[in-house]
Amino acid sequence: MIAGKVVGSLVSTRKSEKLIGNKFMIVEPLRHMQADTRQIIAIDNIGAGIGEYVIVAQGSAARIGCDMEEAPVDAAIVGIIDDGGILEKDDAGME
Amino acid sequence: MIAGKVVGSLVSTRKSEKLIGNKFMIVEPLRHMQADTRQIIAIDNIGAGIGEYVIVAQGSAARIGCDMEEAPVDAAIVGIIDDGGILEKDDAGME
Amino acid sequence: MIAGKVVGSLVSTRKSEKLIGNKFMIVEPLRHMQADTRQIIAIDNIGAGIGEYVIVAQGSAARIGCDMEEAPVDAAIVGIIDDGGILEKDDAGME
Amino acid sequence: MIAGKVVGSLVSTRKSEKLIGNKFMIVEPLRHMQADTRQIIAIDNIGAGIGEYVIVAQGSAARIGCDMEEAPVDAAIVGIIDDGGILEKDDAGME
Amino acid sequence: MIAGKVVGSLVSTRKSEKLIGNKFMIVEPLRHMQADTRQIIAIDNIGAGIGEYVIVAQGSAARIGCDMEEAPVDAAIVGIIDDGGILEKDDAGME
Repeated sequence: MIAGKVVGSLVSTRKSEKLIGNKFMIVEPLRHMQADTRQIIAIDNIGAGIGEYVIVAQGSAARIGCDMEEAPVDAAIVGIIDDGGILEKDDAGME
Repeated sequence: MIAGKVVGSLVSTRKSEKLIGNKFMIVEPLRHMQADTRQIIAIDNIGAGIGEYVIVAQGSAARIGCDMEEAPVDAAIVGIIDDGGILEKDDAGME
Repeated sequence: MIAGKVVGSLVSTRKSEKLIGNKFMIVEPLRHMQADTRQIIAIDNIGAGIGEYVIVAQGSAARIGCDMEEAPVDAAIVGIIDDGGILEKDDAGME
Repeated sequence: MIAGKVVGSLVSTRKSEKLIGNKFMIVEPLRHMQADTRQIIAIDNIGAGIGEYVIVAQGSAARIGCDMEEAPVDAAIVGIIDDGGILEKDDAGME
Repeated sequence: MIAGKVVGSLVSTRKSEKLIGNKFMIVEPLRHMQADTRQIIAIDNIGAGIGEYVIVAQGSAARIGCDMEEAPVDAAIVGIIDDGGILEKDDAGME
């Protein structure tokens, strides 16, 4: 998984029927996290708000682990990090 | 998922039988989105036109979530972004 | 999927039994396509020749979409691009 | 798989129900290992401590291979490397 | 798949039960192959020796194609390349 910050959301009116009712959040991975710090669009089932630090699961884990087995989803917010702000300051990891 | 712009399409006459009837769209991820801004070839089930901003799902999500479980497809356009042009201007995400 | 050019092939005498009878083609992704322009080794079920421009599917799509569900294959040529040479000249996509 | 060093852990109180009881470890891949040396968040089923060198499996292997088939997990620590410190010194691999 | 050279092996005494009996080989992808030339840890079912040039399958192909469906494995050596040394000299592919 990667850790990132929710920086926005997307609206898509014309979309796959299986995506109706889902929120598309824009997550920016932390600089020292995998994935080139490029942003990811992730489904949110946890209720993360903009500015919160989250854990994002990618690949089939997003579909299967979030009970959306049949949906075209490859990334999902699966947890909100406690004290996530610390992560951004500390570039080498934290305990 | 990633957000990108449809910049063209591809024609393939000799192809896997399971791909017959599908359109191959060339999608250029937005600069601040994951995937090195390199272009992706994605199947389109939504009816996206060239110049539109779209959401692309990758991996098994493209096959399974688009009811093409048996097709050799690893990327699919799953939504068209409302006001996608704003995304290109705003490099840090948007609400 | 990505678009690339077949630049060669590989011979492997000692290999997984499930790969017997398959051809290993070396595909070089086009410069503006995803995957860092590094070469990929892909199974060919379409009959692509060296120098041809092809569409390559990666991940589980290669196995499942090419009826090789039980084979250790993560990339397959799934289509030959008509007029592929144009792709190499045009860096921004084409219609 | 990749080899890396456990550099910390994350706490997430609000998370997917399927993740309850799991530890999120922050793993930093070794410099000469795949994945851009960016950190990964991996579930730990082996009991790795901070500072230990570990093997991390990614993708569906993490879920299925760790008996968490239904959990939104895309990376898991699957082994602790004996004499892992040697790996960090030797940049070209070791026997 | 990617082509690489076996440069070493890893020992892991504390590991997932499902990995017992497997060898962890360190494979360095060829410079012009996908994956940033960073090293990968791959299971070996073919009997590759250090210094040999091999084909590595990644993702679910490694598990399913190597009859290790339940193991936390995301990369496997699936073939040994005949005359692999030529690959290292020739940067543009070969026939």
